[in-house]
Amino acid sequence: MEMRNEKLRTLVQDTPQLVGKEVLIKGWVKTRRDHGKLVFLDVTDKSGVVQVVAPGTDKNVSELRSQYVVGIKGTVHKRPEHLRNKKIPTGDVEIQPHADGIEIISKADTLPFDLDQSELNLELPTLLDFRSLTLRHPKQQAIFKVQEALVAGFRKGAEELGCTEIVVPTIAISATEGGAEVFAVDYYGHKAYLTQSPQLYKQMMVPIFERVWTIAHAYRAEPSVTTRHLSETTQLDCEMGFVTFEELLDSLEQVGVTMVDYTQEKCSDIFSAYNLERVALGKIPRLTLREAQEIIFKEFGRDSRKEKDLAPQDEVDICKWAKEKHKSDFVTITHFPTKAKPFYTMPDPKDRQYSLSYDLLFRGVEVLSGSQRINDYEMLVKSIKNRGMNPKDFALYLMAFKYGMPPEGGFSFGLERMTMKLFGLANIREASLFPRDMERIDERLSAHNKDNQKKR
Amino acid sequence: MEMRNEKLRTLVQDTPQLVGKEVLIKGWVKTRRDHGKLVFLDVTDKSGVVQVVAPGTDKNVSELRSQYVVGIKGTVHKRPEHLRNKKIPTGDVEIQPHADGIEIISKADTLPFDLDQSELNLELPTLLDFRSLTLRHPKQQAIFKVQEALVAGFRKGAEELGCTEIVVPTIAISATEGGAEVFAVDYYGHKAYLTQSPQLYKQMMVPIFERVWTIAHAYRAEPSVTTRHLSETTQLDCEMGFVTFEELLDSLEQVGVTMVDYTQEKCSDIFSAYNLERVALGKIPRLTLREAQEIIFKEFGRDSRKEKDLAPQDEVDICKWAKEKHKSDFVTITHFPTKAKPFYTMPDPKDRQYSLSYDLLFRGVEVLSGSQRINDYEMLVKSIKNRGMNPKDFALYLMAFKYGMPPEGGFSFGLERMTMKLFGLANIREASLFPRDMERIDERLSAHNKDNQKKR
Repeated sequence: MEMRNEKLRTLVQDTPQLVGKEVLIKGWVKTRRDHGKLVFLDVTDKSGVVQVVAPGTDKNVSELRSQYVVGIKGTVHKRPEHLRNKKIPTGDVEIQPHADGIEIISKADTLPFDLDQSELNLELPTLLDFRSLTLRHPKQQAIFKVQEALVAGFRKGAEELGCTEIVVPTIAISATEGGAEVFAVDYYGHKAYLTQSPQLYKQMMVPIFERVWTIAHAYRAEPSVTTRHLSETTQLDCEMGFVTFEELLDSLEQVGVTMVDYTQEKCSDIFSAYNLERVALGKIPRLTLREAQEIIFKEFGRDSRKEKDLAPQDEVDICKWAKEKHKSDFVTITHFPTKAKPFYTMPDPKDRQYSLSYDLLFRGVEVLSGSQRINDYEMLVKSIKNRGMNPKDFALYLMAFKYGMPPEGGFSFGLERMTMKLFGLANIREASLFPRDMERIDERLSAHNKDNQKKR
Repeated sequence: MEMRNEKLRTLVQDTPQLVGKEVLIKGWVKTRRDHGKLVFLDVTDKSGVVQVVAPGTDKNVSELRSQYVVGIKGTVHKRPEHLRNKKIPTGDVEIQPHADGIEIISKADTLPFDLDQSELNLELPTLLDFRSLTLRHPKQQAIFKVQEALVAGFRKGAEELGCTEIVVPTIAISATEGGAEVFAVDYYGHKAYLTQSPQLYKQMMVPIFERVWTIAHAYRAEPSVTTRHLSETTQLDCEMGFVTFEELLDSLEQVGVTMVDYTQEKCSDIFSAYNLERVALGKIPRLTLREAQEIIFKEFGRDSRKEKDLAPQDEVDICKWAKEKHKSDFVTITHFPTKAKPFYTMPDPKDRQYSLSYDLLFRGVEVLSGSQRINDYEMLVKSIKNRGMNPKDFALYLMAFKYGMPPEGGFSFGLERMTMKLFGLANIREASLFPRDMERIDERLSAHNKDNQKKR
């Protein structure tokens, strides 16, 4: 953990190498235990936690409570053998502050709940109402270290595919893919929309860089509250030209496995600490939607063979099957009905009722979708019209296809869903630092409204 | 350039190593020249350009025009010595297609302008009206390869500072920093806003990870049209706890230099091809606003010594001074008046009229701003009230300060401005793939409105 420009401070992780030396540590008081004339403090910084043993007579120590920010000048001592704590990397040492060595950098109010438990045990609304405080809990931090690693793993995978990073806009003049589930923006008096995905823009970049990746926010105004939908999500997208359907499937599976491999290695300490289940990475089975439905019918006795998509329970079941039969936590589902997919999806030339589309399921939930795209201009215009939309609303997009577009396709991972399933979280809101849904933007919208009314 | 899952295709960059071999190249026809019985084609893919020499009698070759997508099976031949082209890496070879070896993968309409010139020479509105086509020009591509490198360089710099990557939302329930220049969103019937910056969220993350970075979209509804403002920009942000003002200055300058170093190395071919000026990286001068104004007064005879900020011409002049006196294309300006800065800016304890704030200027334009922040809860509440805002609108934000917040600060680079100035572009719109401004979202809003009226 590099920390440039912190010349004076010692990170607590480095204290075991500094026995007998003077140090200045800075961090948050995690716990305080009074033992007669001595006060034991656990002090945390971003590198870990260390014990401080201070005399109760120190003028500042009596005031210290959980979450106080302190600077402590003192000497690192080896702990007596019988008092060593094998559970933490600094368990062999403790800091004994110098006289007047404890500086209170920032005070903290009395906490509304105890942050010093292995599990917070708060109801989800409380967890989110106090988000900027609850995120201080080590397990909450760990979720977002895993998320950070997933993003880095995605970048690695996308770069191995030879993709160029691009930045795409989030304000659009028309609803990206049709449908009513869009947020409207007042744009200098014009009506604009938040993009439902980076889809159209990444496709437009294929003739420029052939292969591109982007991390983009996507906005869906779905008027429903489920454990796996957010109104603002983070999408990890690739789009590639000159590829076949098979190559697309190979590519998305490679990137998915790279993300998992990278994260499990980078966060191995977190996987151990929270006993997270390692991902089963057997060869990923590929099933058409109809094949998957057939398996679900035979193995689980539920007949969804005429449905146009997998229901949530279907996704759970087919993942269970893939884990048992193929030792894989991933399963790829292909060939969804053409009508159920967006206008840019390429129909299967062998049976145009079905499309060259795919979802990647992971531990019971869809974490990726994508397709080979229609790359023929005339066919694309027809597809837009067939869905009752106006090609004029897609002028700049269609231009990319009018002047030479190779066969192309791509895919999009949902970052919060990957995080949720990798960490074994029950609700996607726990996998977003500041989740947006129908009922909440930081605070509950109901409370916000009430409050606004009071003000009037 | 790695390209997984492209087993059959040869990238044109690899053809010089394959003389005498059969290859299949795929790409876009760039130019076509007819010489008697032979047709010379330049074919480009993401790796470069190569010459194809086909007999005019080939059934497909007569049809080929600029931007057609082709697959060409043929044999790589060494060119005769006198016909070699030293200007391109594949200039020693040419591809001779097999009989029926030319496949037309996708056709192209006749281009509205010539893409095969070293400069496009289009007016800016035309450049943007045809954006998905004009981006195919090599110089346009090069701009965004430089942009990609700047982002990667920023990541490198932020990671060297020990920052953790975070994802922050872009929909907020109140205007981030006050002011009227915000876009309103209809959020399930509630009024919400697009964030003016990731500012408040990254600050809230200091007690979680101490040091964080994020790449975020920022939205400013400024009702003005200048060459250096966009309505949607890409911000490269860091925020760091337990740092002094000096350490913040050191950090931002380090990251800026890392971005430039990384980009100049990664894109050295582009810098050569387009004769881009290398950045002058002498020790970066640091001036307070008042010192800078004094220099401008003395050296350039313009008295702005009582202004609260530098005017555009001031920025140009002080950069000129820095380049001449310090051989630096960067200059850091500090201590802007407290009143002119957002509520979270820390006043200078030595003179509270001025603040611990800073801008980084680069080649005549501000490319970064930031500050040490107020980290004391009571002081922050007072600052919010002093500016006529309601602390209730900042409840979750303030909570982070109520429970122990160390001294902290941060900074934010504007990606499009860095790109513009590094590439020497006249207008920031050229530094955004799909720029948003008061008059345009992909198409011109005036045209869009007219069109909408016609439909009614």
